[in-house]
Amino acid sequence: MWDALNRQDIPACLRICAGTDGSVTLLLELLTGKAVSVKTLEQSVVKATPEIARLLDIDPGDEVNTRLVTLSADGLVYVLAKSLSAIKRMPKEVRSDLMRADIPIGKILREHKLETRRDILKIEMVRSEFFGDVPVLSREYRIIYKSKVLMWINECFPVDGRWRM
Amino acid sequence: MWDALNRQDIPACLRICAGTDGSVTLLLELLTGKAVSVKTLEQSVVKATPEIARLLDIDPGDEVNTRLVTLSADGLVYVLAKSLSAIKRMPKEVRSDLMRADIPIGKILREHKLETRRDILKIEMVRSEFFGDVPVLSREYRIIYKSKVLMWINECFPVDGRWRM
Repeated sequence: MWDALNRQDIPACLRICAGTDGSVTLLLELLTGKAVSVKTLEQSVVKATPEIARLLDIDPGDEVNTRLVTLSADGLVYVLAKSLSAIKRMPKEVRSDLMRADIPIGKILREHKLETRRDILKIEMVRSEFFGDVPVLSREYRIIYKSKVLMWINECFPVDGRWRM
Repeated sequence: MWDALNRQDIPACLRICAGTDGSVTLLLELLTGKAVSVKTLEQSVVKATPEIARLLDIDPGDEVNTRLVTLSADGLVYVLAKSLSAIKRMPKEVRSDLMRADIPIGKILREHKLETRRDILKIEMVRSEFFGDVPVLSREYRIIYKSKVLMWINECFPVDGRWRM
């Protein structure tokens, strides 16, 4: 799985953002020296399809918050992130933050002092409509809270010169 | 606190290692493309002094595991890390790993699937005997587990050309 990160064309800064078990937003802020802005492209509450239920290890029909955001610094998009969150496993005060505002997930977890674990599931090169002709490094991971899957996250990173910082 | 990371002479790779809320060992491996080796310089079990008790929020006299290690890649030391661990708060199987072997703490937590939170307390420039004339960036943080302090960690990073990778 980690082989995808060892390709010659993956800049070091992208390699660490895509490989870290910590917050990507925090690393982006440290790398760029700028505030990272989160822009929500889509957000809705849906009933879990069998496919979503499998990713979150919940029952089909359970409520799930879906969010599609971009992370940008200085006007440049570094990450397109899709998240699925199991609403029933989320402390109430976290729910409103996650569903309402343009706050990065790492910051939400930190501010509510949640103890979690990140399990990386997959790292691979893909194509993405959003980034057009630019090749994309994609990773999937789960955030585990109280021994259950709280969130499934897919982050897509464009592989090009923007990471030479 | 974060101002220490914005000094002109702090290379980007050092900035992210010293600022991350994830595993430093993992970032070092991603940056260098090499396995990181942990060398234990000191390890012992002590009774907590009042000072140690304060750092871990335990009672003076409680048992504490102290460990001083270096993290190296390709023969070069990148980090000198001191840790204090509250033995009574540690699951039994974690205890033996931590006290016996040259395993990075991030890996120990991950392998035992512990859900934790890292609270950064301090980041500052210091002098350290270990690194001699090289200026040192030091940070202190606590690993929180089940709402209590499991470990207090101080990492020292030499500020020089070795981070230009």
